[in-house]
Order: sequence, then structure tokens, then C-alpha cells
Amino acid sequence: MAAMVLWLVTVVVVAVHSASAGVIEAEWEVKYKFWWPDCKEGMVMAINGQFPGPTINAVAGDTLIIHVTNKLSTEGVVIHWHGIRQIGTPWADGAAGVTQCAISPGETFTYNFTVDKAGTHFYHGHYGMQRSAGLYGMLIVRSPKERLRYDGEFNLLLSDWWHQSIHLQELFLSTSPMRWIGEPQSLLINGRGQSNCSQAAYFNKTIGLKQCTFRENDQCAPETLRVEPNRVYRLRIASTTALASLNLAVEGHELEVVEADGNYVAPFKVNDIDIYSGETYSVLLRTHSTPSSKHWISVGVRGRKPNTTQALTMLHYVGASDAERPIRPPPVTPRWDDYNRSKSFTNKIFAAKGYPPPPEKSDDQLILLNTQNLIDDYTKWAINNVSLSVPATPYLGSIRYNITPALHLKSPGKVLIGDYDIMKPPVNPNTTKGSGIYNFPSGIVVDVILQNANVLKGVVSEIHPWHLHGHDFWVLGYGEGKFKPGIDEKTYNLKNPPLRNTVVLYPFGWTALRFVTDNPGVWFFHCHIEPHLHMGMGVVFAEGVDRIGKMDIPDEALGCGLTRKWLMNRGRR
Amino acid sequence: MAAMVLWLVTVVVVAVHSASAGVIEAEWEVKYKFWWPDCKEGMVMAINGQFPGPTINAVAGDTLIIHVTNKLSTEGVVIHWHGIRQIGTPWADGAAGVTQCAISPGETFTYNFTVDKAGTHFYHGHYGMQRSAGLYGMLIVRSPKERLRYDGEFNLLLSDWWHQSIHLQELFLSTSPMRWIGEPQSLLINGRGQSNCSQAAYFNKTIGLKQCTFRENDQCAPETLRVEPNRVYRLRIASTTALASLNLAVEGHELEVVEADGNYVAPFKVNDIDIYSGETYSVLLRTHSTPSSKHWISVGVRGRKPNTTQALTMLHYVGASDAERPIRPPPVTPRWDDYNRSKSFTNKIFAAKGYPPPPEKSDDQLILLNTQNLIDDYTKWAINNVSLSVPATPYLGSIRYNITPALHLKSPGKVLIGDYDIMKPPVNPNTTKGSGIYNFPSGIVVDVILQNANVLKGVVSEIHPWHLHGHDFWVLGYGEGKFKPGIDEKTYNLKNPPLRNTVVLYPFGWTALRFVTDNPGVWFFHCHIEPHLHMGMGVVFAEGVDRIGKMDIPDEALGCGLTRKWLMNRGRR
Repeated sequence: MAAMVLWLVTVVVVAVHSASAGVIEAEWEVKYKFWWPDCKEGMVMAINGQFPGPTINAVAGDTLIIHVTNKLSTEGVVIHWHGIRQIGTPWADGAAGVTQCAISPGETFTYNFTVDKAGTHFYHGHYGMQRSAGLYGMLIVRSPKERLRYDGEFNLLLSDWWHQSIHLQELFLSTSPMRWIGEPQSLLINGRGQSNCSQAAYFNKTIGLKQCTFRENDQCAPETLRVEPNRVYRLRIASTTALASLNLAVEGHELEVVEADGNYVAPFKVNDIDIYSGETYSVLLRTHSTPSSKHWISVGVRGRKPNTTQALTMLHYVGASDAERPIRPPPVTPRWDDYNRSKSFTNKIFAAKGYPPPPEKSDDQLILLNTQNLIDDYTKWAINNVSLSVPATPYLGSIRYNITPALHLKSPGKVLIGDYDIMKPPVNPNTTKGSGIYNFPSGIVVDVILQNANVLKGVVSEIHPWHLHGHDFWVLGYGEGKFKPGIDEKTYNLKNPPLRNTVVLYPFGWTALRFVTDNPGVWFFHCHIEPHLHMGMGVVFAEGVDRIGKMDIPDEALGCGLTRKWLMNRGRR
Repeated sequence: MAAMVLWLVTVVVVAVHSASAGVIEAEWEVKYKFWWPDCKEGMVMAINGQFPGPTINAVAGDTLIIHVTNKLSTEGVVIHWHGIRQIGTPWADGAAGVTQCAISPGETFTYNFTVDKAGTHFYHGHYGMQRSAGLYGMLIVRSPKERLRYDGEFNLLLSDWWHQSIHLQELFLSTSPMRWIGEPQSLLINGRGQSNCSQAAYFNKTIGLKQCTFRENDQCAPETLRVEPNRVYRLRIASTTALASLNLAVEGHELEVVEADGNYVAPFKVNDIDIYSGETYSVLLRTHSTPSSKHWISVGVRGRKPNTTQALTMLHYVGASDAERPIRPPPVTPRWDDYNRSKSFTNKIFAAKGYPPPPEKSDDQLILLNTQNLIDDYTKWAINNVSLSVPATPYLGSIRYNITPALHLKSPGKVLIGDYDIMKPPVNPNTTKGSGIYNFPSGIVVDVILQNANVLKGVVSEIHPWHLHGHDFWVLGYGEGKFKPGIDEKTYNLKNPPLRNTVVLYPFGWTALRFVTDNPGVWFFHCHIEPHLHMGMGVVFAEGVDRIGKMDIPDEALGCGLTRKWLMNRGRR
């Protein structure tokens, strides 16, 4: 299988700005549309009438100019380009309240940025819980000189879907006592799933679902992956789930993991992959020599007790007839709470050869305690005892124009852990709201240790996939229990840690990551589980504040809150 | 009964600005909340956690300063002060896209205006279909020298309620083919109704609903009106329905109509009143001498084939026990399509003595044809063949700052009727979108004739209650069929037409109204049926454009679209 991946001697990690860099320009209209993502009608947030949104196919170095027009009735909207570092263009990151004001109904905002390096990415709404409404799509950046060898490729955008509207879900989460939204009604592969039938019911009548029958053009009918024998295919897999941690397997086929979050990893083979919300992977799949057969691709829930049937689609070898069915049942998703199995997968991920190692030492360290808390009987998530409440004035704007109230944005503190017992419900569950901002000078090395803890009730700790905007970071290591400062740092992998933008925090454990503050801007860092973020589970990293003050930020990005007022009055000063 | 109403010799119609005018200041937070308006849980748009919103009790001449903070997740919001003329403060009228930009989540906007004359009014959301989400409340302006004599008063705010969210309703209406939202699931009196039971089931087991039983503090339990015998009560009745035309009756009691839309009318007695969305009435009710009995107050649907049970509450004479029930059944709502009965009620309404008559002649005349149309297979309503599409830049702002694109706002034409056959479906159902703006100089007299027509299919014409912002107008008359210019004007009542801000347009008929352009501003004029407005049934009157150009409008009202851009760049010019 080594021949499958041809590594160039010199791996170029730095940005590729080729002379032939192109421009991809598109006009997008966002509005609600009726759709049948899982064979039941629902409201999706569609882009140009499509769900999922259009796939962007770019080449490293390209400039993307996306004019987003909000055609919603009363809701603002933004688009976040997940995995794109936005070097020099932090205002184009699309995080509402952090890097820009939401685009108001009837208005158009132009995102103009460079996709500096190749990778498998996606984009999605980043305002309220609009990602859960289906506002997402793939963003593929190809390399002008791809180092992987394969014969064809497929995109698999994974998501989860609820039958209740996001507005109702938001109210559920922000009412007192909090009402949990529950497990998703279905899992979707490229926006297609089935909630009231199973394609594999013929294997097991006890599943309680009838066999699916699709009519042509059914929006819930799966897209099968048509392959030829004896070929290598690249599957670009991204998870934009609101909640679910997923496991993907292809019956009868090994997967060779080669890319994670837009960075090459040292190839390794597995029968299935775990993928958390916010993550992307590329895997290479070599087809058998038999020209006519069908095989299940299954996607199931892990990390939470599942109440959602597997999503299924098919690997369809050219010779097989459309009517033919797979002769073996879909792969069984590993037990949801077998965390050791999950960790075993995670621990196989290392940077590909050629990536330089991280800096040996850090200049600053944050230890961020993840807790579930209460504010006046409303359930919240908090980081170092501050539950994030994004202000009406975008951080990037208040810093750019040095607007006084912004300077009072309170930092939650670099360490709170102290003698906090992470193995038990909080002794004092109360917390406070805050802007969760941390300030870093340019050019330093920052370590962040994410520390998990027990939730409010029972002996439970949940999975949190944390995503950092504006950066790739090195994942230095994972540990069980409470992080021991001064000791656990010694276990860090400083040789070949993978570069990622999303990393999982396991129950009752810790995760350490390192990044360099080399990208002036204001970068959201948050749990990628949509309800968790909605309930305050995030912080904000302001970086190179002095440089932000000289940055050219389009006024359109800052037409709200105190920045709007400032911009309207600047001529009067 | 004449003694009931004591008319002062001189009726003061002009604004009352007494030296003792007060200030009513309030901070309002708008957000969704779970509520049980009709004994079934739903999402309401609550103000300070209340549904309906708090009642404002003001005195003519008072200044209202209402700081509205948007605590919604992703939706903008505005509040329209229905019936308040906003003399000198058109920016405070609260019509999104017309007089201001919607208030974005997290932001606060301050409405600051004078309630210049006494009257029964209400306020409500005026963005998307947010009124339908329950964003409304009463606004009572009392006179320092009230001319009516009564012993007590009650507010009855009437509305209709759907179990489907407004977001789904909006999508229903804007999908192709259009899906109608259907009749409301319930009617509410002061936000309280019952959809799954009837308080009067004990009279008629065949109604199919079980007898209601309420627990204390049930949000759907009716507020009874507790009265003493031999007294006179003023019922202030307002309809903020999204759709339903209503009829209200009090079993065993006559109602003397004394006020309509904040203007006194010549008193007349009826057994029930018709009230259309956007209208308000005050009626005087004299209680009997029996100290202990209960009587139904019933509210039912008219003008559309009803599929909604009556809303009921009780008139509770002090001596009656809580457990006691009315011994007579609720009044039966008149047949929905007995339009002659409706017209008979409407034709009883004349201005009270002392109101000066309208100007004898008009300087300008619009004949506005109301049609149901298609734009690319999307169902719309249009006025003179233009379906209103409110632009992203508020009209008031584009006129204030003379922003060029605003000057291209196209007027739909003053007359379109021509040889249009209003009795049949349109020969050419296609229409166009437009900004629907009409420009009037200051100080002229304008006549508007609303002309109804047949809808797209079948032989049907619907009721449309039209509401004008910024003005009271004289209702000069109603007619059947097609308005005959040069002839029908002769039928106008120029002696004592009632002053109103909302007027009904009957099926296949016309309605004529007159107003004076004495209030510089931009005033929405639209069908008050929420789905109809959402589908384009409105126009905009710009009045005294030269004076608007000198007006002091808070920047906060115009922080969107081209006005935001203009305001941000003014210092650079």
C-alpha cells in the first residue's frame, strides 16, 4: 500500500501562492427552503436553492470572492470558512459577533480571502444554531502538486438532523429548566439520510424500520459511490454535525488515513474512523478486483448513547446492477462508550513526514476547565467559570477601533483548575457570563490544556471537540484525569504531533495543544457541538492587537453595535 | 342611555399638549418564551417575559421612551405603535424597512415619541410575521378630560394563534406553489384561549370538545371581567389578529359603540360588533341590576369560512360564585359570509359631534386595485400590479439623505383599474415586485380608493382591512363592484365621516378614504392581514419629502443598507 502514497522528499507546509493563482467568485443567496433530508419534510437553510450548499473546488493560492446575500425574512446570517486560516483577512472568518456583524436580511456581504494551502474543508453558518438548520457545504482546496496518488475522489459531508426547528431547539436550550434537544432524528451523508426506513432492513427484520424504496429524485435517496475495481479513491470526509460524534466504515474495505483537518498525517490503516464535529479526514480506499458488487458505507453515532439509526450509502462497483443489493450487512458501529477504542484511533494520528516539529517551549499556558454550570437556574457551559456571551459589537471591531468598552472585556483567567474535583459534579454550580477573551502578543508560543470535568448531575463527562479559528495547532497529547502542571508537559509529543484545527477532549481527561500567535486577528475557540456553544462553551483569542489596530477592515463587517456608532461618527471627530 | 355619554360642548380634536405632560420610560427585552396561549405549549415572542406584552397606560401629551433590547438569537425586531401618528417623529413608527432598520440581536433602540391624543391603541412587531408570534400589547392613552362617563374599564386585546411557528408559516407562504397557513388554531382574548377544550361544552355535547378545567395560573385560563350591577363599563377592544375578522358579543348585554381607532364616534347601540385586524373600538356596557350571574363574552370568526372555535371569557357579576356557570349559552357568531350584516354595522359608524368635516375636495386621487397575482409561480398580492418588496434601506433614510437609488424607487401608478374585470380571476395573473412608493407634497388632500377584485382562482374576493401609519383618515364611503370615477365620488359622506386609521375593504367592493398630508414622513399603508402583507400587499406614502430632508433622525434608526454606508462615509465627503 506504500505505493499508494507517494511522498515528495520535501514537504512544503508553507502557504502556496503560485503565480497562476485564480479567483473563484460566486453569488450566494441564503434562504429557507422545504427539503426532505431524511425522507421527511423539513425547513433547511439553503444556498442558491441547494442543500447542502454548493461544493467549492479551489486550488491552493486561489482567491475566493463570495458575495453572500441574506434572503431570510428576519434573521441575520454569516458563513464561516472552517479550516481556512484567513491570514491577513480575519474579518472574513465569518464568526458572528467575533469577526463581523451578522449580515442583515436584504443585505449582501462579500467574503474575499485566499485559500493558502490545500486541504479538505467545509463552510457553515456561525450564528445562533444556523449550522443545525443545514447551512453548510464542502470546501475543497487542491494542491497544484498533490503528493497523494489516487484515481478518483468522493466528498462525504456528514451531518445530523432534527425534525424540530432550530428556533425551537434554541429555546429548549435557553429555557429554565433547560430541555435537552435529544439525539438527532437522522444522520445525513451529503445531506441525505433516512429516518423512517432503512436500506438494510432486509438483513434484520427486528430493526423496526421498513425497507426503503426511493423514487427518482427523492432528496433523501443516497448518493452511491460508483467505483471501478483495482483503483485507489480518496474519500474526503468532513463532519459538520451539531452534536454527534461519528464512526464511518466501508464494509470489506480498509481505509488508509492520510489527511486530517487539511494537514497530511503519517498514513495508517484502519477498518473504520472516528470523526468528531468540526474534523475532516481524507482516507484512501483501494477497491477489490471484483468488478460487480456493492458494499455498505455506514455512519453511526459514538460517544453518546445513540438513538439514531446508521446512515448508509453504497460503494457500487461498476458491474453491479442498480437493483442489486449488498450481500453482507452494514458494518456495526463500535460500542458508543468504548472510549479506549476511540483513543486508540486518535493516538494513531501523527504528522506526515516533512512537517517541522513544533517549537520546543511555550511562552504562555492556559488551562481551560470545561464545566457545566448554572446561571440563575439556566444551564450553561463555562470555561474557567465564565460562560461565553458574545457581545453585540464584534471583538475584531472593538479592538480595531480601540472602543473603550471593548477594553473592559474580561478574561476568564488563565488557570482556574486549583483544587477543583473534576470527577464529581461541581460543589458550587453557579457561574457568570462574560466575553471570554484572552489577549496574546504576536509571535509567541501558546499552550492550551483543555480539561474536562463532570457535568452538573450524575457521574458523567461528555466529549467536546474543540475548534480553533485562524490556526492549525499541534496536538501535543491527551491524558486521563486532571492535568498535572509541571509534570504532564513531559509526556507531550514534540516530535511529530499532528497539525489540526479541531481536537477532541475525552470524558474526564485533558488534551494539550500548541500554536504560534502568527496570525493577527480575533479567533474563536469553542466546542464545535452546536448546543454547547449556544450555551456558552467558547473563548476568544485576540492576537497581535497592535497589528489589528492598523488593519484594513471593510466597514460592512462592522455595521453593528458600538463599531457602527464609531464608524458613523468618525468624520465628526 | 344618553346620560351614559356626556359630550362636552366643544370637542377638542387637535393634539393635547398639557403643561403637565409626563414621561413614561420603560426598558423592554424581547425574546422567545414557552407559553400556553391556548392550553397547548408554543413559542411566543415575549416582552420582559410577558405575553401579551405589558399594557402601556399613558395620558394624552405624554412622552413615551421605550428602550427595546433585542434578546433574540438571530432575528431583528421592531415595535410599531399602532394608531400613534408620530407627528415629527416618523423614525419612531417602528415599521422595519420603512421607517427604520430592524434592531439587531443584542442591540437596544430607543423609541421616543409623544402620544398626542387620547385613544385605544396597541403596539406590535412589524418585521416578517413577528406579530403572529405574539409580539403585541395594549397602548391606552387617556384624556386628561375624558368626555365619556363610565365606572370602570377593561381591555380586550383580541388575536389569533397558530400552532405552527411563524418561520414555517413564512416559508409556507413564500414557497411555490404557495401553501396556505389555514385558519388559526385558536382565538385569544388578552392572550388566552382554548384549542383543545371548550368552556361552554356543557351546553352542547356535540361540539366535539371536552369541558375545560383549569388549574390556577394556567396561562390559557380566561381572565373574567368582574363587574358590579348597575354600572357602566368601557370595554377597550383591539384586534391584532394575523388573519381573522372577528365578531364580539356579550350575552344579554347591549354594547354602545363610542370610539373607533382612537376617535370618538357618534354613539350607537348593537348586540355585537365586527372588528377587523388593526381596528380598535370602545364600547360602553351597562350592567343589569342582578348582582349575581355570569354571562359569556364570545369572539368568533367572520369573513372567512371559520374553522376555529369561539374564544370565550365571562362577565362575572360580583355576587356569583367562582364555581357558577353562565346559564345561557354563548352568543352565536353571525354567519361568516353575511356581508350585508357586516356592512350594516360598518355603515353605522359616524364621527362624533364636534369633529370638523373633511376638506370638501381632494387634490389628488389614487385608485388602488387589490389583486392576487403570480411572480414566477410564487403567489403574491399586488397593488396596481406591483407586489411590495421592502428594500434593505429604509425609505425614510434614503429620502432623508437623498441617496440616489432611493430616488429610483418606482411608483406603482395612481390608477390601474382601466378595463380590469374585478369580478373574474385576472386574465394575466403575472405581476412584478416593487417598492410601492407614492410621493405627496405637504399640505394636500389625498383620496385613496381601495378597489377589491377576484382572487387567482374561483369566484372569490377576500376581506382586506387596510391600515395607514402616521394618520387618521376620513372614511368617505363604501361601494359595491367597480368604482366609477367622476360618479361614485358623489356618494361620499362629507358631513360626518368617521376618522380612523384602519378601514375594511369588502369583497368585490371599494372603499374611499381621505387624508391631509400634514405629517412629513414615510408612512406604510397596507393590508393588516399578516400573510397578505408578507405576500406584498402594501404601499408606502412619502409625504413632505423636502421636510424629511431636514429632519433629525437618530443614526441608530438607519444603521443598515445604503444609509449605513452613507452615514459611515459622511465625514469623508
